[in-house]
Amino acid sequence: MKNNKLPQGFLASGLKCGIKNNDYDLGLIQFKQPYRVVGFFTSNLNVSYSVSLSRKNIKNPIFAILVNSGNANCFSHNRGYQDTEDIVKELAKKLDIGKENVLIASTGIIAKKLPKSKITKNIPKLIKDLENSPKKFAKSILTTDSCTKVISKTISFGKKKVKITGIVKGSGMIKPNLATMLAFVLMDADINLGILRKNAKEAVEKSFNSINIDAAESTNDSLFLVSSKKVPLTKKEEKRFFLEFQNIMVDLAKLIVKDAEGATKFVQLDLKGAKTVKEAKRLAEKIAGYVLFKAALYGSNPNIGRIIAVLGQEKIKLNKNDLKLKFNSFAKKNINIAINLKRGRYSWRVYTCDLSPEYIKINAEYN
Amino acid sequence: MKNNKLPQGFLASGLKCGIKNNDYDLGLIQFKQPYRVVGFFTSNLNVSYSVSLSRKNIKNPIFAILVNSGNANCFSHNRGYQDTEDIVKELAKKLDIGKENVLIASTGIIAKKLPKSKITKNIPKLIKDLENSPKKFAKSILTTDSCTKVISKTISFGKKKVKITGIVKGSGMIKPNLATMLAFVLMDADINLGILRKNAKEAVEKSFNSINIDAAESTNDSLFLVSSKKVPLTKKEEKRFFLEFQNIMVDLAKLIVKDAEGATKFVQLDLKGAKTVKEAKRLAEKIAGYVLFKAALYGSNPNIGRIIAVLGQEKIKLNKNDLKLKFNSFAKKNINIAINLKRGRYSWRVYTCDLSPEYIKINAEYN
Repeated sequence: MKNNKLPQGFLASGLKCGIKNNDYDLGLIQFKQPYRVVGFFTSNLNVSYSVSLSRKNIKNPIFAILVNSGNANCFSHNRGYQDTEDIVKELAKKLDIGKENVLIASTGIIAKKLPKSKITKNIPKLIKDLENSPKKFAKSILTTDSCTKVISKTISFGKKKVKITGIVKGSGMIKPNLATMLAFVLMDADINLGILRKNAKEAVEKSFNSINIDAAESTNDSLFLVSSKKVPLTKKEEKRFFLEFQNIMVDLAKLIVKDAEGATKFVQLDLKGAKTVKEAKRLAEKIAGYVLFKAALYGSNPNIGRIIAVLGQEKIKLNKNDLKLKFNSFAKKNINIAINLKRGRYSWRVYTCDLSPEYIKINAEYN
Repeated sequence: MKNNKLPQGFLASGLKCGIKNNDYDLGLIQFKQPYRVVGFFTSNLNVSYSVSLSRKNIKNPIFAILVNSGNANCFSHNRGYQDTEDIVKELAKKLDIGKENVLIASTGIIAKKLPKSKITKNIPKLIKDLENSPKKFAKSILTTDSCTKVISKTISFGKKKVKITGIVKGSGMIKPNLATMLAFVLMDADINLGILRKNAKEAVEKSFNSINIDAAESTNDSLFLVSSKKVPLTKKEEKRFFLEFQNIMVDLAKLIVKDAEGATKFVQLDLKGAKTVKEAKRLAEKIAGYVLFKAALYGSNPNIGRIIAVLGQEKIKLNKNDLKLKFNSFAKKNINIAINLKRGRYSWRVYTCDLSPEYIKINAEYN
């Protein structure tokens, strides 16, 4: 990564605290001043204690985001939420900020107690190690991911430069409505909170809400977006900024699908000719999540019967000439599929992958 | 099979007509007189031409049921329905009955043209081979099944005896709302059509609608029930008859799950403590269809986080002490799981299996 510095106003760190056997599992992002954060969380009703706490704190100005991997901090024991508060309190004390000015995110196995003292013991070192690179932090948030996932982009407006850095994790339990993923998008352009929220919502729909690995929605998904407001933009510059922003969000989402557990193929699927956008999105998601379609992808087997069957299951009645299917080749590593239902003029694009025997093995053994 | 004769009033046959490479693929059940048939079909909107034709004919008295495997006879070409009519017309001619008195069922790959002449050419032999055993017919309806699936039971009321024979196929594309399955349940007890329909509906809910292999609903599911009305029953006898009938239906459904593609485990899952029966059934189905739960079963890994996650995804919020989970051992071949939500007093039982790498391989290569 040549562009390996964080945007102005942010520092990050990561280390091995012992939740995992011998791997990075604790990370911190610190803001130089308190900034307001836009957050998106899982719509699963059984959520991590970390999600519950962050949902509460996100209305406050934020100074720091703490993350652990290797443990979902969810449904583990009756004092789970209090333990989470204790951890956050300890970090706040060491940073000399209020405990209400901290966010926390967790990812990993559900229903196991988070080893609180392993985290609190390592907070001083985590603070000491803060640097203006995302590198160690990006390592500290991974679970079954095979690589770190960071995209940094500098956008120039004449001599003025702004920067966006997105750091994500995720490779299994991925379906629309976010995914088993954590994402941190940091920027130094001075963006108004309401405008950021509006643009983020739209971008999330087209990125993290349009990927599907296994139709499984996690208890922990969290996406945080934050601007340090260092570089003011004109309205025109802001417009271009958000075009780039949306591309980065889509590229971050694609990184997750490309690293999907056991996947051997990356698929861009366009569902066209639907009656409404909602219908297009629903059907694209259903096809992308259909086990038999994903098995056919794995086998490089363009079994269109699978698409006909899942559309009928979703109550879309097709006549022989209704369906128009275009694809490059099921044998490639990158497959583009366009399905035209010829019912209307709306379309939606999703990103998905095949389902391989390796996926089953990874998830059979995960603990 | 020691009990290998059909109930009175029925004959059956099966042969190799060449749809498959070198395996049984064409079968016939003939009734000695015209009987009324109770039918259940897939709720998929894209159906086989065979389903369309049988849906139309089932209101008539029926003399014969023709079945092919190796081809779903679905979404293949513009003359698909006419070809199906031609096949049925040819059978009717050879049996000297009306073409409206025939049912037809197909199972196999979607979107491939059914080789009409291979079938019509073999109709005379199919009729000549009719016998009072289900054996060859049971072979002729299989696809990825590893064995024939027949249950025969004689029920005695003093000296009076009645018989039920159920013949099914199915091992993949199995989810509630029938399944990718064909089932033929023949009986000689004299049961009124309305009473048979009512009892069959209840039994289907608890049997074929309560199994889940891969949450995939096919284009071809057909279940036919028919009584030759040879043996009259008293009301009291009828009551006992339907208890046995329901057990047979559940046992037939279990045979499908036990032969599920690639499965290494058979799972009986009881969802208890739901607010309504509908809720219990919905949640039991969702857990049984959840890829990550099925992968954990394969790995003999009692990862309860998977159950918590899917329940939350289905909008069931749990507190730490809400969920009561009981199971023998995930390492066994037969696993019994009871999940008690402690929300209410309703429950539902489903039958399911694990998801193995072998399932993916079978469906990656299926064509």
